[in-house]
Amino acid sequence: MTATAPILLTPGPLTTSAGTRQAMMVDWGSWDERFNQLTASVCEQLLAILNASDSHDCVPLQGSGTFAVEAAIGTLVPRDGKVLVLINGAYGKRLARICDVLGRDFSTFETAEDEPTAAADVDRLLHADPAITHVALIHCETSTGILNPLPQIADVVKNHGKRLIIDAMSSFGALAIDARKVPFDALIAASGKCLEGVPGMGFVFANKQALAVAQGNCHSLAMDLFDQHSYMAKTGQWRFTPPTHVVAALHEALVQYQEEGGLPARHQRYARNCQALLDGMAELGLRSFLPAAIQAPIIVTFHAPQDPRYQFKDFYERVKAKGFILYPGKLTQVETFRVGCIGHVDAPGMRAAVKAIAEVLQAMHVLDV
Amino acid sequence: MTATAPILLTPGPLTTSAGTRQAMMVDWGSWDERFNQLTASVCEQLLAILNASDSHDCVPLQGSGTFAVEAAIGTLVPRDGKVLVLINGAYGKRLARICDVLGRDFSTFETAEDEPTAAADVDRLLHADPAITHVALIHCETSTGILNPLPQIADVVKNHGKRLIIDAMSSFGALAIDARKVPFDALIAASGKCLEGVPGMGFVFANKQALAVAQGNCHSLAMDLFDQHSYMAKTGQWRFTPPTHVVAALHEALVQYQEEGGLPARHQRYARNCQALLDGMAELGLRSFLPAAIQAPIIVTFHAPQDPRYQFKDFYERVKAKGFILYPGKLTQVETFRVGCIGHVDAPGMRAAVKAIAEVLQAMHVLDV
Repeated sequence: MTATAPILLTPGPLTTSAGTRQAMMVDWGSWDERFNQLTASVCEQLLAILNASDSHDCVPLQGSGTFAVEAAIGTLVPRDGKVLVLINGAYGKRLARICDVLGRDFSTFETAEDEPTAAADVDRLLHADPAITHVALIHCETSTGILNPLPQIADVVKNHGKRLIIDAMSSFGALAIDARKVPFDALIAASGKCLEGVPGMGFVFANKQALAVAQGNCHSLAMDLFDQHSYMAKTGQWRFTPPTHVVAALHEALVQYQEEGGLPARHQRYARNCQALLDGMAELGLRSFLPAAIQAPIIVTFHAPQDPRYQFKDFYERVKAKGFILYPGKLTQVETFRVGCIGHVDAPGMRAAVKAIAEVLQAMHVLDV
Repeated sequence: MTATAPILLTPGPLTTSAGTRQAMMVDWGSWDERFNQLTASVCEQLLAILNASDSHDCVPLQGSGTFAVEAAIGTLVPRDGKVLVLINGAYGKRLARICDVLGRDFSTFETAEDEPTAAADVDRLLHADPAITHVALIHCETSTGILNPLPQIADVVKNHGKRLIIDAMSSFGALAIDARKVPFDALIAASGKCLEGVPGMGFVFANKQALAVAQGNCHSLAMDLFDQHSYMAKTGQWRFTPPTHVVAALHEALVQYQEEGGLPARHQRYARNCQALLDGMAELGLRSFLPAAIQAPIIVTFHAPQDPRYQFKDFYERVKAKGFILYPGKLTQVETFRVGCIGHVDAPGMRAAVKAIAEVLQAMHVLDV
């Protein structure tokens, strides 16, 4: 099956290297010193990517990225806090839903799915409502691939003396964020995205001071980042059974990340992937949903062809048969599909994907793109 | 590293087969139909082990087993419910802690770590406190390896018209439980235990009627089993990114489970492992903590040697160098260590472990065992 496994052009899980998967061929004892070292090494490397070793703790957490986002909000927003949630897509809406379920007071500010949140609006909203204690946003919104202006928003939040929570799920490791310049209480990401590990764990970079005063705040035992961090600091171990193979794969993926040249190299490869995709699709007449200026090189949303002979499911299956897995659109108003630029794939791979898409559209007699 | 990887004689993560690990060599798209089929097949096979296909839904959940236990309590115990928690070890205490953090009213009944909970005591406690709505217990308490009398307790709970929540983390798949005879609202287990998958997901068998009325009850978005199940029933997909490789490994482990002969064969192998371990250790003069009648063939607690030359850490490292990873004791009053009987290992493997232990004790000059 390995030989014919398709390339995943999705926002994660994505295609990993054979070496990363090979790291899962060992069973690790979760109590063993060697496994503790693996965890510690992963956390150190993750902190270094953000320049956050001095200012933040890296708290790994079992589960998907959303578990880590919920854990960050539940642990770090006091029960009497209020969160301003910035929304321009499905993941921003999920942040608001988490606040709602957890019983944290919140308000939302929503812009169109092709409109980045403006820092000036955040400034205005913080002036208008002094009850707000935290601002939460999505760095790169996977619904469309839109990039929000994180440094500008972080400045505004800091100037108001408020705290920032950043869901950087689909950008961390590929788009530079410097914790020495961008102040935040929490930044959240996961193993199976731009670091090219396998899915199964998230991690929260929590400001040391904010985490230190968060004892007893969390709504959940399993998601309590204060407890998770305290136990790990004391014992070197995860509080509850870790996904050992996932941790080992992430460790190997981080070794490869450094070998490739770290964040600049990872960013450049994804930028080349994105450009190859945009250029190739433009030649086919397929239009991307976002203007280039706000398009992150992570995932691209394309307008679906107008031709009635186009049906996403048929299109998807035919492209998959040629070795590439695409992703459905997530917009409610416009019919779209998405193509990821991330994972263990390069620009020639992206051109091969475009070629497969061209052949499929031709075979489907889709002319009106 | 694979060739020299030690055998894990621990309560999980444990040693898996090469075939199970090999199943992680493919990257799956989480949106792809083939992956949905994998998930559906896993759930069907898990339900069949319990004879629960008609009565219960299998709800898989990202994270460790404890995440699934918390999710079951949070989703299925109403906010005005009251839980009687039966305790004879660390995992029972954890159930109480979860109720506490989640703000569910609860009372506890604790027996000594070598004393199974008596059904008669549960009967008495339910008579005494009509406010109790749910009873929660650990089937096999990993702290010691003690087995609690589940069928008898389930009968009492049923006769009182109360609901039962069973943490069967370390027994499911090896010790028979028949949902047609043992009524329960929730039974919880995980991938990396007696099914011999890798760690990274749990699952809750939830009574269909109990789950159907649980909408909006959960304290958490990510752990809401009602939402998780509804979404999966509608789309075939996990609500949030699944640990795809862990799911694929569990699917392969379940294929091997059936090939071995299902639960009876798995139980017999573990029983042979346990007997080989007990016999061999008795020959060395090492005494097990529990009497045979209440010892489950899952994990065995041994009294540590009395000899001052015995130190667990040194002992552990020396046995590990010979290819076997043991587990520390978890009792506060008595010095012990634990040896697991579960995982991809057989009776000759257990005898080899005993031989390694004998050699190590000799090399350490530990005479007074």
